Amino acid sequence: MHPVSAPSFSEALRSATLHAGSPLCIGLDPDPDRLPSTLAHLPLHEALGVFLRDVIEATAPFAAAFKPNFAFYERFGVKGWMLLADVIGHCRTLAPHAVIVGDGKRGDIGNTSRFYAQSAFEELGVDAVTISPYMGSDSVAPFLEREDKGAFVLAHTSNVGARDFQQRTTEGGPLYELVVKRSLSWADRLPGTLGFVAGATDVKSLARIRDLAPDNPLLIPGIGAQGGSIQDVLDVAGPGPMLINVSRGILYAGKGADFAKRAAEAADAYGQEMAV
Amino acid sequence: MHPVSAPSFSEALRSATLHAGSPLCIGLDPDPDRLPSTLAHLPLHEALGVFLRDVIEATAPFAAAFKPNFAFYERFGVKGWMLLADVIGHCRTLAPHAVIVGDGKRGDIGNTSRFYAQSAFEELGVDAVTISPYMGSDSVAPFLEREDKGAFVLAHTSNVGARDFQQRTTEGGPLYELVVKRSLSWADRLPGTLGFVAGATDVKSLARIRDLAPDNPLLIPGIGAQGGSIQDVLDVAGPGPMLINVSRGILYAGKGADFAKRAAEAADAYGQEMAV
Repeated sequence: MHPVSAPSFSEALRSATLHAGSPLCIGLDPDPDRLPSTLAHLPLHEALGVFLRDVIEATAPFAAAFKPNFAFYERFGVKGWMLLADVIGHCRTLAPHAVIVGDGKRGDIGNTSRFYAQSAFEELGVDAVTISPYMGSDSVAPFLEREDKGAFVLAHTSNVGARDFQQRTTEGGPLYELVVKRSLSWADRLPGTLGFVAGATDVKSLARIRDLAPDNPLLIPGIGAQGGSIQDVLDVAGPGPMLINVSRGILYAGKGADFAKRAAEAADAYGQEMAV
Repeated sequence: MHPVSAPSFSEALRSATLHAGSPLCIGLDPDPDRLPSTLAHLPLHEALGVFLRDVIEATAPFAAAFKPNFAFYERFGVKGWMLLADVIGHCRTLAPHAVIVGDGKRGDIGNTSRFYAQSAFEELGVDAVTISPYMGSDSVAPFLEREDKGAFVLAHTSNVGARDFQQRTTEGGPLYELVVKRSLSWADRLPGTLGFVAGATDVKSLARIRDLAPDNPLLIPGIGAQGGSIQDVLDVAGPGPMLINVSRGILYAGKGADFAKRAAEAADAYGQEMAV
């Protein structure tokens, strides 16, 4: 008999990375101002749906993961949530090997965080989420209860605001290190469910997070437009599990009728640069 | 000629508090397991909509604000977002004097936070939001750009996890104090747009936040089920602007056909206890 249970999140991530040949994560962050002109005849939400579906289909062979950032959908209200559900469905159908990361950065008191976990893991059906640690243990714990699902806790992000609080010295080192250490203690029952967001824009903090969490998957933004280097990331975060995110560099590689082909070429190139 | 522009958020809050006679904020956090049995014949989402509409209508005279927590809606996916939009519409129609706080605790890198602000202020049309400060300046700033809208930054929350990071000592005092001080510096252009979430469960931190931010509105959860005292809150946070939140104590005051009447009685009683 075959086991009927879903693979653990760790196994799904390993298998997706092997299938793609790299830890490439493609950020699905639609921008109405950058849609190909060949889709301009469609109503906006339909055009966004076709654009994302075609990009997912074309880039699927090169993607270990897809990562829709919820803000890019939620800005359109109810219609945006419908688009988000459609996009997740396209990922599941067109790239069944890939992991889907719902990038919502949610977090609330324990009983309320539980509803955010339900929203992401059950309603939307993503494999993993990003979460904000500011509210502490009970806000994080509800995302670490299913072995087949993962949670990337924001540790050190790739934006300028990372210096405001994350880099501040506390009695346990910089705040982001304290976040990593404390989160690890909350995941002791199912350690494979816990990952961290660690930006490529600050190699030192990325290396420090990898030291503290050698076996946990890192979700690494900040490559490309934000200036992070793939080689640096591989040097300090490898060979542990990770996903390296690229959004605009793939989504908007082409502007014309061949946008999907150009996105695939860009994904292929990024994948080769990241090949493990 | 009358001015056609919307009142500032500070003015709207002051006027709403005067109208209600107290700083009572009613949390609209629907729980399918606690719906009145008289609504059991309706499909779930319809029952939740009727329940919330009737509660809003009955409690409107006593509410300075209504605060839907997004997680309680988002757990139902697209249908939940439709319900959330309906509920915000009911608040606007049935309680036109009241402020609507969208409790989503969002936060992302600057350009992305901008879409969350668009979602809340333009698509949903709430007057204020709650936001998470972990990602720093550029994640907070996009919520402080419209004088007619407000943002309550999480400072010291009412849950047990508040001790994990918020209370940690940094070179600038406990993290929550650093969050207040830094956020104030980011709101220098429109100081009236910035408020803070400060739990009633820790009176000392609440008092400290009021000292640091004497003129900024505080959104205060933790009364009732969580154990905070209204008198303590009034003593340390008054007479500055504030909203004191009660959710379950009002929403589920009654279980039968008279649920709306019982909710109104509970809101009236809380309002009198908080009267300013």
